[in-house]
Amino acid sequence: MHRWSQLFIPTLREAPADAEVASHKLLLRAGYIRQLGAGIYSYLPLGNRSINKIIAIVREEMDKIGQEFLLPALNPRELWEESGRWSVMGENMFRLKDRKGAELCLAMTHEEVMTSIARNELRSYKQLPQIWYQIQTKFRDEPRPKSGLLRVRQFIMKDSYSFDIDDAGLDLSYQKHDQAYRNIFTRCGLEFVAVEADSGAMGGSASQEFMVYTDAGEDLIASSASGYAANIEKATSRLAPVEDLAPTGDGNPELVHTPGQRTIEEVGAFLNTQPQHQIKTMAYMAELPEADHTKLGKLRPVVVFLRGDHSLNEAKLLLIAGGELRPMTPEELQTTFNAPAGYLGPIGIEAAPHPKKPGTLVILDKALEGRTNLIAGANKEEFHLRNVTPTRDFKPTIIADVRNINEGELDPIGEQPLRLGKAVEIGHIFKLGYRYTKSMGSTVLNRDGKETTPIMGCYGIGIERILTAAIESSAAANGGSAYALHPSIAPYQVVVTITNIGDTTLLAAGEKVAADLAAAGLDVLLDDRDERAGVKFKDADLVGIPYRINIGRGVAEDKVELVDRLKNLNQDVPLNQIASTVADQITSALQTSLPAFAV
Amino acid sequence: MHRWSQLFIPTLREAPADAEVASHKLLLRAGYIRQLGAGIYSYLPLGNRSINKIIAIVREEMDKIGQEFLLPALNPRELWEESGRWSVMGENMFRLKDRKGAELCLAMTHEEVMTSIARNELRSYKQLPQIWYQIQTKFRDEPRPKSGLLRVRQFIMKDSYSFDIDDAGLDLSYQKHDQAYRNIFTRCGLEFVAVEADSGAMGGSASQEFMVYTDAGEDLIASSASGYAANIEKATSRLAPVEDLAPTGDGNPELVHTPGQRTIEEVGAFLNTQPQHQIKTMAYMAELPEADHTKLGKLRPVVVFLRGDHSLNEAKLLLIAGGELRPMTPEELQTTFNAPAGYLGPIGIEAAPHPKKPGTLVILDKALEGRTNLIAGANKEEFHLRNVTPTRDFKPTIIADVRNINEGELDPIGEQPLRLGKAVEIGHIFKLGYRYTKSMGSTVLNRDGKETTPIMGCYGIGIERILTAAIESSAAANGGSAYALHPSIAPYQVVVTITNIGDTTLLAAGEKVAADLAAAGLDVLLDDRDERAGVKFKDADLVGIPYRINIGRGVAEDKVELVDRLKNLNQDVPLNQIASTVADQITSALQTSLPAFAV
Repeated sequence: MHRWSQLFIPTLREAPADAEVASHKLLLRAGYIRQLGAGIYSYLPLGNRSINKIIAIVREEMDKIGQEFLLPALNPRELWEESGRWSVMGENMFRLKDRKGAELCLAMTHEEVMTSIARNELRSYKQLPQIWYQIQTKFRDEPRPKSGLLRVRQFIMKDSYSFDIDDAGLDLSYQKHDQAYRNIFTRCGLEFVAVEADSGAMGGSASQEFMVYTDAGEDLIASSASGYAANIEKATSRLAPVEDLAPTGDGNPELVHTPGQRTIEEVGAFLNTQPQHQIKTMAYMAELPEADHTKLGKLRPVVVFLRGDHSLNEAKLLLIAGGELRPMTPEELQTTFNAPAGYLGPIGIEAAPHPKKPGTLVILDKALEGRTNLIAGANKEEFHLRNVTPTRDFKPTIIADVRNINEGELDPIGEQPLRLGKAVEIGHIFKLGYRYTKSMGSTVLNRDGKETTPIMGCYGIGIERILTAAIESSAAANGGSAYALHPSIAPYQVVVTITNIGDTTLLAAGEKVAADLAAAGLDVLLDDRDERAGVKFKDADLVGIPYRINIGRGVAEDKVELVDRLKNLNQDVPLNQIASTVADQITSALQTSLPAFAV
Repeated sequence: MHRWSQLFIPTLREAPADAEVASHKLLLRAGYIRQLGAGIYSYLPLGNRSINKIIAIVREEMDKIGQEFLLPALNPRELWEESGRWSVMGENMFRLKDRKGAELCLAMTHEEVMTSIARNELRSYKQLPQIWYQIQTKFRDEPRPKSGLLRVRQFIMKDSYSFDIDDAGLDLSYQKHDQAYRNIFTRCGLEFVAVEADSGAMGGSASQEFMVYTDAGEDLIASSASGYAANIEKATSRLAPVEDLAPTGDGNPELVHTPGQRTIEEVGAFLNTQPQHQIKTMAYMAELPEADHTKLGKLRPVVVFLRGDHSLNEAKLLLIAGGELRPMTPEELQTTFNAPAGYLGPIGIEAAPHPKKPGTLVILDKALEGRTNLIAGANKEEFHLRNVTPTRDFKPTIIADVRNINEGELDPIGEQPLRLGKAVEIGHIFKLGYRYTKSMGSTVLNRDGKETTPIMGCYGIGIERILTAAIESSAAANGGSAYALHPSIAPYQVVVTITNIGDTTLLAAGEKVAADLAAAGLDVLLDDRDERAGVKFKDADLVGIPYRINIGRGVAEDKVELVDRLKNLNQDVPLNQIASTVADQITSALQTSLPAFAV
């Protein structure tokens, strides 16, 4: 049992003006952290208690699948030259020289050190698999530190590295991490989603990010109750079938006069049809993929055809078109396509044969695949076309998913409604492949006595991210002004608030309740300060303790008030049952499994 | 329970040639650590397990007296300018610039950060006392990293800082640390001595170092069973009384012809007397204290008079004489004192009136105070003097303790025999005073509403030092080739060695014993490797596990062998009693209090 009067808990009425996101404001106001410099924070006792509890959970789950190391932050330049990352890391990495002029860096991750240990110590397939992890301070010279602990220059990371003899081994190490991560985040009380990420560029074959929805996040994701989850630049949805329009005339494209009707809405109203029966045309100038610059000049047209009621996802488009994009000017439209703005359409535009070949890159959104008799611009002032049927009437360079999905559309695998929102990454698992073992020359003898390169995975959890994500989630549910942490990671599980320490009956009752809770194995804080009850209630709520017991006038009738801040429930409990009641509730909260996928 | 076959324990037959001290060799051979660069080490799973156990003990004891923080390693230059330590730290501190050119350092300790938090957050005496600690990685650009983990450039430190309203408060915070440190080191199984250190230069009023005797250490200390302990430059001893010679003649100094007798031994033999009745004279040239340089030239003579059988401690002399010292040449002796080498003595040498005043600094060792009728050089070739009585016949500048003590002499407070030896520092407590709170402007309002500067203490424990000191101590008792750690900090408390895993009876027995030990709450390692028994025994001893259970042929008679490596005892134990026997022994070892002072 700790006594508030003897602790250092410097709560603040107001957060500094430069604190923007909720967790930043609250971590400062609750006396969890103080800023020392840009992106550099001191963790005060409450913050440190939460961090230590998170670390203990991470360690416990990681010990089930791997072995803990502790690697140095100071790394010699030579090691990072071996992997090629000394130059790749650029300004993001802190570098320094020692007294003898030798160059060092502060490691951002530890692939190099782990691989060098593997190279020196692992000789045989019999020594595989290995899963090696550490919980250690990382440094990163973040260009724009902000948002409190969300984007910092020094932070604690659990990073791990697996070494396997083959793909099947890596699959298993990856699956073990997936399960360990789900256990960790669930035990910390987080509602998270696991998002498949593409990792082709790094030579890896699979990658998954663990995300928590919060407006403080910088990623946009979509997920559903069926377990589907994706970054917005990957997310797609199952669309309800659309009944095509009946053909008119001979069914071939047919001009229709649409004077002054330029937008989807105008044309729809004018022709008495729906946006989903129209083709929306968008035109950009884009940089050509680098290899072709010299041949073709830097820019080329990119034309995208979408369903009339859909919007373009520029990130998806960029993955196909590459480089920089900007809308075409009316003059460029005229010069290139001989078409006026508002009347641009697919027929007559010659598409490049391949996205990397010269010519106009024409992209047909997947939602238009198989559709018939659509209405589109005619590339002629005041005219549209009916009966436009993609691939029959025009050939795109590529058919691809480039549209934004919308909240509430159904996910493509389980057909559950999609939730769309900003999120923050709390963990990442990654099939790394041979990137480091190859470049650094790590080999073992396989079953046949042949030199074989082990395959690696790498895996990370941001310790502070767990705390900030938990605070952001809870603050969002509390109007941004307070939060309650799960009893597994709160600095204290329960606070006993004596409303008036001048009243010896209340004082004695509070002491007794706190002692009983401590005897029940709970992490209890007794608020024995000589302050008004209102101040104490506010402070207790501010610092995120999930259960509060108010020792007030009810004691005369043998009652105390129990506030369950996670469930927003208040109840009166007989004095002699309060310790066991709270102990039961906390035990139950610690054992509850949350759903692995949040919606 | 962990299985050796599934762990990463890369033991080595030989240590690298550059490893000198026992702990360095053994940490490498036992697979606890690997070197990454000069003074930079990776901690492998066994090393990390020990480190984590030490940290847990430190945290548990520190939580009894203070609150845990976690402060950043990256510190802005501006903060260190405030205390003046940006320049003081010189090349020992790692410095770097961020991407914007701002200067940062990697903090060596955290007085500045803690004081800045105190300055910003503490307003009233009511918030005092505070004891704030952290367990965190420190960086130091050690000029000559060596001796494995004993002298490194990155290490883990428990550092704490106390803030009190007055001296009495600081006394209490200091005493609390003293007790916490004794608890920590005792629980880690270390035999330590607490050495009073002088700290006047830092403005502090008291300081104590916790030391462990080991030849790998770089300090020389003396201690006794009575609790007396001191660095060799401070240590003194109680001398047995010496019966002075009877006076000859009128009792005044009297010339005696001693042709060719120059040394103490020669004169003693020649005059048929003991060295303890003689005065040994030593003459040096020393730099004058800086203030007087300009007036007097840089060097002045320093003459020391010791009891004939005593030797000079140069460190003690330096504290009085200051600056650099070198023996006087025979020419200087002749010029300065008109005396030949071998016949120099006290009478006739004019002493400076004060150590900082010009003239010859004459020092009389305390052991000669009150002595009479001594024999000394006569400052005349081939002559000595009898009846020389200090302070009657000559006046020294100062009487001071400048001699070396000898092993086995009695300590000055409890008169117990002194042990003399090299030692390594594992902890330090220090009454810091106002050094940082004053320079950084931290104040609180005292009881009378007046601005008052809090007084600080600072306190440190080297986490890796505990491990290395424990290994050095144990290795010294094991001929340097193996060690056993206390069960509180060993990576595993007990290893169950199945001598032949091909024998299914032994395999089953080993599994059962290990499972029983794990069920008893012990940290157990099952050596299930397909290796010869001899290899397994050697490995188990090498990695420092204190208890080993050999599952061998005795199983047929229901017996296993228990090896207690701390006590060097082997015993046969019935199979069904082994788990409870070992559990009892470990429980008892964990509860045993070692004497607070080792001899």
